[in-house]
Amino acid sequence: MANRKKNKLRVIPLGGLEEIGKNMTVFEYGESIIVVDCGVAFPEDEMLGIDLVIPDVTYLEKNLSKVKGIIVTHGHEDHIGALPYVLNRIPVPVYGTDLTLALIENKLVEHQMLNRAELRAVRAGQTIQLGAFKVEFIRSTHSIADSVALAIHTPVGVVLHTSDFKIDHTPIEGEPIDLARIAELGKKGVLLLMADSTNVERPGYTMSERTVGETLDNVFKDAKSRIIVATFASNIHRIQQIVNSAMKFNRKVALNGRSMINVVKTAMKLGYLNIPPDVLIDIDRIQKLPRNQIVMITTGSQGEPMSALSRIASNSHRKVSIEKGDLVIISASPIPGNEKYISRVINDLFKQGANVIYEALVEVHVSGHARQEELKLIHRLVRPKFFMPVHGEYRHLKQHANLAQSLGMPEENIFIMENGQVLELSQRKAQIAGTVQAGSILIDGLGVGDVGNIVLRDRKHLSEDGLIVVVVTVNSDGKILTTPEVISRGFVYVKESEELMDEIRELTLEIIQKNLGKRKSSYANIKNNVKDELSSYLYQKTKRKPMILPVIIEIPC
Amino acid sequence: MANRKKNKLRVIPLGGLEEIGKNMTVFEYGESIIVVDCGVAFPEDEMLGIDLVIPDVTYLEKNLSKVKGIIVTHGHEDHIGALPYVLNRIPVPVYGTDLTLALIENKLVEHQMLNRAELRAVRAGQTIQLGAFKVEFIRSTHSIADSVALAIHTPVGVVLHTSDFKIDHTPIEGEPIDLARIAELGKKGVLLLMADSTNVERPGYTMSERTVGETLDNVFKDAKSRIIVATFASNIHRIQQIVNSAMKFNRKVALNGRSMINVVKTAMKLGYLNIPPDVLIDIDRIQKLPRNQIVMITTGSQGEPMSALSRIASNSHRKVSIEKGDLVIISASPIPGNEKYISRVINDLFKQGANVIYEALVEVHVSGHARQEELKLIHRLVRPKFFMPVHGEYRHLKQHANLAQSLGMPEENIFIMENGQVLELSQRKAQIAGTVQAGSILIDGLGVGDVGNIVLRDRKHLSEDGLIVVVVTVNSDGKILTTPEVISRGFVYVKESEELMDEIRELTLEIIQKNLGKRKSSYANIKNNVKDELSSYLYQKTKRKPMILPVIIEIPC
Repeated sequence: MANRKKNKLRVIPLGGLEEIGKNMTVFEYGESIIVVDCGVAFPEDEMLGIDLVIPDVTYLEKNLSKVKGIIVTHGHEDHIGALPYVLNRIPVPVYGTDLTLALIENKLVEHQMLNRAELRAVRAGQTIQLGAFKVEFIRSTHSIADSVALAIHTPVGVVLHTSDFKIDHTPIEGEPIDLARIAELGKKGVLLLMADSTNVERPGYTMSERTVGETLDNVFKDAKSRIIVATFASNIHRIQQIVNSAMKFNRKVALNGRSMINVVKTAMKLGYLNIPPDVLIDIDRIQKLPRNQIVMITTGSQGEPMSALSRIASNSHRKVSIEKGDLVIISASPIPGNEKYISRVINDLFKQGANVIYEALVEVHVSGHARQEELKLIHRLVRPKFFMPVHGEYRHLKQHANLAQSLGMPEENIFIMENGQVLELSQRKAQIAGTVQAGSILIDGLGVGDVGNIVLRDRKHLSEDGLIVVVVTVNSDGKILTTPEVISRGFVYVKESEELMDEIRELTLEIIQKNLGKRKSSYANIKNNVKDELSSYLYQKTKRKPMILPVIIEIPC
Repeated sequence: MANRKKNKLRVIPLGGLEEIGKNMTVFEYGESIIVVDCGVAFPEDEMLGIDLVIPDVTYLEKNLSKVKGIIVTHGHEDHIGALPYVLNRIPVPVYGTDLTLALIENKLVEHQMLNRAELRAVRAGQTIQLGAFKVEFIRSTHSIADSVALAIHTPVGVVLHTSDFKIDHTPIEGEPIDLARIAELGKKGVLLLMADSTNVERPGYTMSERTVGETLDNVFKDAKSRIIVATFASNIHRIQQIVNSAMKFNRKVALNGRSMINVVKTAMKLGYLNIPPDVLIDIDRIQKLPRNQIVMITTGSQGEPMSALSRIASNSHRKVSIEKGDLVIISASPIPGNEKYISRVINDLFKQGANVIYEALVEVHVSGHARQEELKLIHRLVRPKFFMPVHGEYRHLKQHANLAQSLGMPEENIFIMENGQVLELSQRKAQIAGTVQAGSILIDGLGVGDVGNIVLRDRKHLSEDGLIVVVVTVNSDGKILTTPEVISRGFVYVKESEELMDEIRELTLEIIQKNLGKRKSSYANIKNNVKDELSSYLYQKTKRKPMILPVIIEIPC
């Protein structure tokens, strides 16, 4: 059995399937395990109060001695964000390109654990040996610089993992995606392709990042006042283009937002971003320059309520306020779920007197993910024996499977997997072979995994109808000592509902008196009765179901 | 003063500006008031637990004797939904076309108040006199049948209110929008245009509803198994087209979802929907027919969690479950905020084995709102002296104002208003003249307006971090009688946090003992101390801020 296993490659996604984010895939062969990516997801709507979601890495903990390292394909949160939590439990080296490691470094510094981590730099084109695996880093293009695809050379064949990518023939900095090497690997034979499904529903090609620069030039050309551009801090090529347009039209550039300042500093230091020293000015200096000589680059392109742009829009930013005629460009598209936040920021900016340009109006953003024609090109070049669509909700994975089939791949060679499922591959065969523990670990404040379904269910209940606490004291003879104390929060406005509170008090007294009389009524029973009877009374009165917390205290006197 | 006022028309939006929904506009002249539309809005994300939002009609209550009637332009919820609440306080006749009134009737029956309402039918082309106003109903086209625009003839001039509309030259049933009459009014002179801004950000024309029929035919033609189409129950023309396509390909039609069955029944009775009796079958009969002879039309096109389609997708519908090969068509586009719900339903349907077609893939839906070129046409035909963009968030109102300016209208003749602001018009002049009370009344269960900001703030707090109740009993000498009772919900999973609960108990005891010792520490003071000290302790331990509710009970013994 152990022997048979040794001859198989096991590919186990621990995150990134049937979801956007939390990307992590395990590759196992005999005594070797490598992990690709280590990302976070943002909480679903019903995960009330949760800050972040990370993958469950129990399987890695159980096989810790096998784990040779974590390979990170690029520096986005959904690929690096879980490292501070995972490295605590899986202390192995992390491999990535320079910029990716620099962004990881910033993150580890924030979590005060840089000294405990071992970061090993690689460059595109390089191949490293990790146990039974040879991992080859292939230059790729995406909405962050220095991203790579991976060719994982295993004893049973090559796995090509595109990670997030688009095919940009004219990137802003560095080399285009190394299609030649991908074609060469395809020619030699690829066992398994794992490819990005994010944009599979969109026909055609994603435009080159360079087209945004042209749009920006056109917009900057006509601008008469201050320009504020919001984009992702990690989109360094976008930032470079904003800077380029600013320089063309004799504007200085100020940065706004902590992550924007950090990432730009890091990228400049490493040479990924080229901003002449006299162009970059401190945000405090913008008041001293004519308004038509300023470009501000800011965070907050997703309308995040505490971000720099939201604060500017609501006129609560310490240093920047909108003046009539300011031009704000939202150079990003909404991540699903953020539409309303962004809309609110746009409304507020207009109200402050700004002119706002956003994707619905002008093409000031392009995606970082490949569309249908790009995906088809990759499939045609790689010509894999097996295919696993990755990075997407089920609908995306399914559509990507359909796309592969439309190119002639047999349905039985395509594996739409779930997180935790094991794909076992030999040189000729692939099959789903069981599952390992996988899932979502919720991060809330300092708590990692201490908030589960019960806590979330209570939060949801509280959020919808609030609560009522009723406290009664009795003595050991079952005599009620005080009139019930009733406290309500999030239910009705108490001051205007004195009458209802009185009724609750009386009803509680009644129920308790009735029950104390009965033999064998434990306090737990009585509390349940109070809960049920109050609940149905209140539902009938208000059609609401507040959480009811009865407290009975026995006083020894 | 009173005299001057008599000579002016006052136009007062009480809802529908800087928001989607809750449409209501007041027209006042001397002793006459008429109200146009009476809609609900759906709650914002932060309105936790709220069911609906209606306009504040205090101004109408204060001027009740003047109010001649409520005119409703079409039967969508954002135009009729607040009637059951508003008619309770403003008992006046309601005017609308046949289908609109029939939908209102259904709604009033649900609220058991039909007998108290006075519904008066009008038809497009008709003009009625209401006090100082002549209200002319003009045939319009929208995503619901029997919708009208209004020409309100007042002593100072004509106001043209488009309400929600698109320009559909080939509607499915009934007449196209009466552009000739609108042009005639424009020719004679229109004082004020109020026009729909929903789609102002979109260039070009909205396609005719008829184009959806062609797409459906193409999709139905190739379908081999059962077809399930989800759409809005009120989109009667869409339903007619689905039925037409079904008949073309020899399929029977079953209806699913309470509102779908109600609206179809109403529309058939009134002749707005034409379905031969042998085509419509009961949902219980679908098991007896071959799968390729069935079309089901269902509610749930917005992915609403309790809707028929959601229950089918999660395999919890009593009568319908997906079989491999079923084709599901989502014939609607997401209302902002619903994207994630719909996405979840699509994922679940794919997982159940269905093939799903939605707007991102195929044009199975068109909007009911005019795009830029249609809006320009209306502006050109009406050539109003003044313009007030309505129905939209601020960004839409602003873009609509820009569109009017681009057509040559002077900026000072355009009024971007807020709900409650009064636009005062004479034959030659228009100006904003003060405000009246306006705002959002929140509906929660049976409560109308009893949930305000404090309740919502508490719900938000509870939803994010839960709560901790600590109860302490003392006697009148300030001696503590029982160890503090600690109850927590939505904070941490209690069973795994015994230690933390113990710490909370001890800390509470400590704080209270310390404070009881001090002179002049009222119980309120002590409770505040418990709150503050526990709060900062827990924040430091967990980086969370649960609501803390201290209760101190004095026992007279």
